[in-house]
Amino acid sequence: MIAGSMTWAIPGGRVPERSTGPEPESTSYDMVCLLNIGDEDANVSMWAYYEHREPVGPYLLTVGARRVRHVRINDLIDPEAVPLETEYGLVIRSDVPVVVQFWRQDTERGKAVATAAAIPLD
Amino acid sequence: MIAGSMTWAIPGGRVPERSTGPEPESTSYDMVCLLNIGDEDANVSMWAYYEHREPVGPYLLTVGARRVRHVRINDLIDPEAVPLETEYGLVIRSDVPVVVQFWRQDTERGKAVATAAAIPLD
Amino acid sequence: MIAGSMTWAIPGGRVPERSTGPEPESTSYDMVCLLNIGDEDANVSMWAYYEHREPVGPYLLTVGARRVRHVRINDLIDPEAVPLETEYGLVIRSDVPVVVQFWRQDTERGKAVATAAAIPLD
Amino acid sequence: MIAGSMTWAIPGGRVPERSTGPEPESTSYDMVCLLNIGDEDANVSMWAYYEHREPVGPYLLTVGARRVRHVRINDLIDPEAVPLETEYGLVIRSDVPVVVQFWRQDTERGKAVATAAAIPLD
Repeated sequence: MIAGSMTWAIPGGRVPERSTGPEPESTSYDMVCLLNIGDEDANVSMWAYYEHREPVGPYLLTVGARRVRHVRINDLIDPEAVPLETEYGLVIRSDVPVVVQFWRQDTERGKAVATAAAIPLD
Repeated sequence: MIAGSMTWAIPGGRVPERSTGPEPESTSYDMVCLLNIGDEDANVSMWAYYEHREPVGPYLLTVGARRVRHVRINDLIDPEAVPLETEYGLVIRSDVPVVVQFWRQDTERGKAVATAAAIPLD
Repeated sequence: MIAGSMTWAIPGGRVPERSTGPEPESTSYDMVCLLNIGDEDANVSMWAYYEHREPVGPYLLTVGARRVRHVRINDLIDPEAVPLETEYGLVIRSDVPVVVQFWRQDTERGKAVATAAAIPLD
Repeated sequence: MIAGSMTWAIPGGRVPERSTGPEPESTSYDMVCLLNIGDEDANVSMWAYYEHREPVGPYLLTVGARRVRHVRINDLIDPEAVPLETEYGLVIRSDVPVVVQFWRQDTERGKAVATAAAIPLD
């Protein structure tokens, strides 16, 4: 069985700045959801692409064997935080195949949600 | 004609706990929609992947020949219920090709909906 | 240039029954958006798949050469209307390649929207 | 590494006319998000396809090497503005591989958002 791809892209990122409702569950966020079906841990490096400067990264994380991991972009701080209300794209590379989905929760006015599969590049 | 794939993945699951509005139509849910275009019943097994423990399954179901079936994750109880407000991913295997789409309805504040095609793995 | 696929599937259909707001622009709907980039008209036939009975169709329509066409499922009435609040899936076949996207507008409580690319089967 | 595709399609465009909330951040819009992972600038040309007339274009833009660019359809004015509340589809061609995602923000009643990956045609 194929267990996904080793490179994924998300062109349409922009972490909403404004939120309403109780923290932290109602905070607006962009999120990347990674699924590692395989029997080896996935070492993942993510790079943020911007409109007016060079890419920033790598953001390093591990997705254990047979584990899922949901990462809020708001929580990425090393090497630097992804700024709010700023257009970005994400490239996600893994040393073993994974599957990736993107979510946004925007609570500026009520609660809005949107999701899309990330786009595999291999 | 190709009738889909035999393995699909959904990395971004999380059944919302809170709901507003009349039950059961306004209950928040995650949902998997399976379409079997073929002339043989599809025997489907689903596994839930988590962040901090081994996958749980199989959740077994059948999608009849030339039938669609929409399954709320909230209704999966055997071998065990998928806990609310908990990050999970789903792997769906079928013995004949099917097509899979994911939906979320979140009625915590008003009504929000989101959908994405599941990601084929073969 | 490839101009798309000749067969597409949408497993997750369910036309919302309730609507709020001024008609017809605020009516809840499911919608299929077809794009024909080519220089020949596309003759399209759609079949609705259900949970508890045989598929219904064909719903016939044409997408002109170099034209887009957005079709509300609510408007499909021949051979029979797609019932509201009923789970269905859609299979879309064309005699030339097209590209297909799915939309839902649900105005039961405020306005919710969701979209996904249909899944190509060839 | 593959860096995406050179042709993408979005069949389901329709820029919402009505908006509520402070301008410009709450204006309703359709948006195309382009990501150029490569080391060469991407020269992109977009064509709008309509229901009742010939395609309009090209809308020309550049996505720098290692850059993302988010383009609101509302801002496309040359050769002509894309009319509001009008069904359209989009074909996006680039001279180097890029990755494309579609977003809609609809603030007619509260805030609704939806996104989908564009569909690669090569």
